[in-house]
Amino acid sequence: MAKERVLIVGGDAAGMSAAGQIRKLLPDAEITVYERSGYSSYSACGIPYFIAGLVEPETRLVVRTPEEFLQKQNIVVKVRHEVLSLDPDGGTVLVRDLESGREFRDSWDRLLIATGASPAVPPVEGAKAEGIFTLSTLETGIAARRYVDKFRPRHAVVIGGGYIGLEMAEAFACVRGMKVTLLDKSPQVMNTFDADMAELIASAIRGIGTALRLGEGLVGFGTEGGRIRSVITEHGEIETEMVIMGLGVRPNSGLAGDAGLKLSVRDSIFADETMATSRPGIWAAGDCASTTHLMTGKPFWVALGTVANKMGRVAGISMGGGRAAFPGVYGTAMSKHCGLEVARTGLTEREAEENGFRSVSSVIRTKTRAGYYPGAETMHVKLVGEEGSGRLLGGQIVGGQGSAKRVDIIATALAGGMTVNNLLELDLGYAPPFSMAWDPVQIAGRELLKKTGGE
Amino acid sequence: MAKERVLIVGGDAAGMSAAGQIRKLLPDAEITVYERSGYSSYSACGIPYFIAGLVEPETRLVVRTPEEFLQKQNIVVKVRHEVLSLDPDGGTVLVRDLESGREFRDSWDRLLIATGASPAVPPVEGAKAEGIFTLSTLETGIAARRYVDKFRPRHAVVIGGGYIGLEMAEAFACVRGMKVTLLDKSPQVMNTFDADMAELIASAIRGIGTALRLGEGLVGFGTEGGRIRSVITEHGEIETEMVIMGLGVRPNSGLAGDAGLKLSVRDSIFADETMATSRPGIWAAGDCASTTHLMTGKPFWVALGTVANKMGRVAGISMGGGRAAFPGVYGTAMSKHCGLEVARTGLTEREAEENGFRSVSSVIRTKTRAGYYPGAETMHVKLVGEEGSGRLLGGQIVGGQGSAKRVDIIATALAGGMTVNNLLELDLGYAPPFSMAWDPVQIAGRELLKKTGGE
Repeated sequence: MAKERVLIVGGDAAGMSAAGQIRKLLPDAEITVYERSGYSSYSACGIPYFIAGLVEPETRLVVRTPEEFLQKQNIVVKVRHEVLSLDPDGGTVLVRDLESGREFRDSWDRLLIATGASPAVPPVEGAKAEGIFTLSTLETGIAARRYVDKFRPRHAVVIGGGYIGLEMAEAFACVRGMKVTLLDKSPQVMNTFDADMAELIASAIRGIGTALRLGEGLVGFGTEGGRIRSVITEHGEIETEMVIMGLGVRPNSGLAGDAGLKLSVRDSIFADETMATSRPGIWAAGDCASTTHLMTGKPFWVALGTVANKMGRVAGISMGGGRAAFPGVYGTAMSKHCGLEVARTGLTEREAEENGFRSVSSVIRTKTRAGYYPGAETMHVKLVGEEGSGRLLGGQIVGGQGSAKRVDIIATALAGGMTVNNLLELDLGYAPPFSMAWDPVQIAGRELLKKTGGE
Repeated sequence: MAKERVLIVGGDAAGMSAAGQIRKLLPDAEITVYERSGYSSYSACGIPYFIAGLVEPETRLVVRTPEEFLQKQNIVVKVRHEVLSLDPDGGTVLVRDLESGREFRDSWDRLLIATGASPAVPPVEGAKAEGIFTLSTLETGIAARRYVDKFRPRHAVVIGGGYIGLEMAEAFACVRGMKVTLLDKSPQVMNTFDADMAELIASAIRGIGTALRLGEGLVGFGTEGGRIRSVITEHGEIETEMVIMGLGVRPNSGLAGDAGLKLSVRDSIFADETMATSRPGIWAAGDCASTTHLMTGKPFWVALGTVANKMGRVAGISMGGGRAAFPGVYGTAMSKHCGLEVARTGLTEREAEENGFRSVSSVIRTKTRAGYYPGAETMHVKLVGEEGSGRLLGGQIVGGQGSAKRVDIIATALAGGMTVNNLLELDLGYAPPFSMAWDPVQIAGRELLKKTGGE
């Protein structure tokens, strides 16, 4: 009997998590991974910190090299190999070796599409100028870092006030000591937060010294000798020496879509709980794949390393014949901007309304530790709950050190279908260096209970 | 109609939390609190940090003074007033004014017993010597602090390797720069942890420079001119200038027991979910009251500030005619020793066995943050689960900064009745400064799944 052939398109978090699981379940299978970039299994989330200079060298971001995959797990990872198309009926892919230019076909018994996501690039003039970076791959991160080291820019414009924008503004302003302008056409930063919490983030960003220009759209770039010279906005021109585009990402679903696989929300590749696509024998996982939002029950798409790892594990177990499920997400995400930690999970007030929930909310301001304990910092918690039932719908946190990871309490409570009363009953950890006697999340719960009904 | 008279015996966390709730629900009631010490509503958990000198002055530990309670909430707090006995049939208490020595009777319509707990003092010679401290009240903390400031001891012996012991050893060794010997007759520190996790704590304590003497019982004290000179153990004599006794506490249930109220485990005052005692019209809350261990379903007693606050809130709502429940605890607790964070919840492996669970466990060692991110520290997680069902039974954490509060994920999962598989499905927060892509708790869950059945 011929050995089972497993092909994986994309050798980052989802693809390589899957490969590891498949190897455990199918010890004899031939597992080949095609990866377009020059690196396998690296932490894309670490790129801002590499650019900042907090992480050296870039190879520290690589979890495992192709050589290690081959030696330790007998997994063949071919980097700089791009899959150009796939033929589901024939069970083959067309691959281009990006070094030699040679194209060839390869066949699969089981296929995983883990092609990730790519940054959105607005079709404006000058977007290809030297000094403008979108951070999609480790290579683009290395290029940005080299540019910083070479030109030592004193000022950068970060376009987009989302997670990448916040982290790059931190890298430049708080680590590199550069002046930063953060530009967003939206009236608030962090659109996955409610406006009231976003305003807390915005004022902290301003307080740290970053110029925040909200409600101001990008028009184009001024260049000089092919290099960036300014960012042109709806309201004027900002002279700068470097630009980071953090305008969000889109699922790399072209390959799947062209092959007739069903697409889902925002053109992500449809995948069920086992990460199976609409086509038998083909799975999808990671930033290219759809999932379910567990509060709304609706199809959902999010590009996050932790989700990609979990999807990859489940896809690998499924492909290996095991049983595992990735039921969906609550939209948990977190980030850091200098001393400020931000996190969110579940539904914001706005999202709750959009999804037809009768929601109420509480916002509290308290301390990360016992107020008398050194290093206690301000922390805001917003909780959203359902009126009447008292069911928790989501939470948002903005605060100093120790704030953000408390979102896990809320995320776990959401997964448990808990009410505000259940939240208050939780036996959470307390000691003065870590918390108030009531955890801040529970303090917010006590306020919320007054609105959902109770105390 | 005469005003409702509410009496509260004990003016710390539980008593004053209750008082606040009662005031909201019964705006016209006369609320009087008798507190034996000179302070109301202070953070007993903060005493080690005050002795360390991290908190100044001691009044920062006081949440609210009697004057503030009177002004803001019309609650009369009589400090230095000890309740000597209570007469449930007559509805009266006998009170002594500790300043004047005057004794008087006071009557109640509703009574809360929130008398707290007292440190165990072994009946050994010399235990009353100057320089030996048990930390029960803010006054004893102040006395210990004055002693340190006055005599500047270079060495202290801490007796008892539990939470107080760890925190006092930290205060002396890591903040005050003193030499410390930590003595415990048990073969391990932190008896609420399994031996394997306790050994990690012990080796960290030793690494920090504290001399750890385990399996060595206290015999007595050597004194000179009424002042401590040495600690005499089963194995020898340790010269020292100061001793802290951290041998655990016992519920102050004498008043209740003498009045015929039902007692529960470890002589704590029996209280149901609403914190009602066996006697109508009398409630109990805080360190003196019993609760339920929610993993075993058995009566349980624990003296912790966070539990006292929650019990006090529920007692107050109940006494005010509202509806609230304190169903019980999972035994969540945490502490810090210099750079080391420790936390636990639910059942240890030993406790699981003692309670008849067929348990399996996993211990993993990983990092608090992405491995490449500056400041990532080692973190160990132990999870205990039920064989077959895969239900989570408990968890223990020992590690660097950011470790301990992760116990909340486990505590919340326990409250949700989650299995190991549920734990792996949790949508926890991730960003490189805060976590690995899989949270350490989930990494431990993946290991545990191999034993409970699965992957």
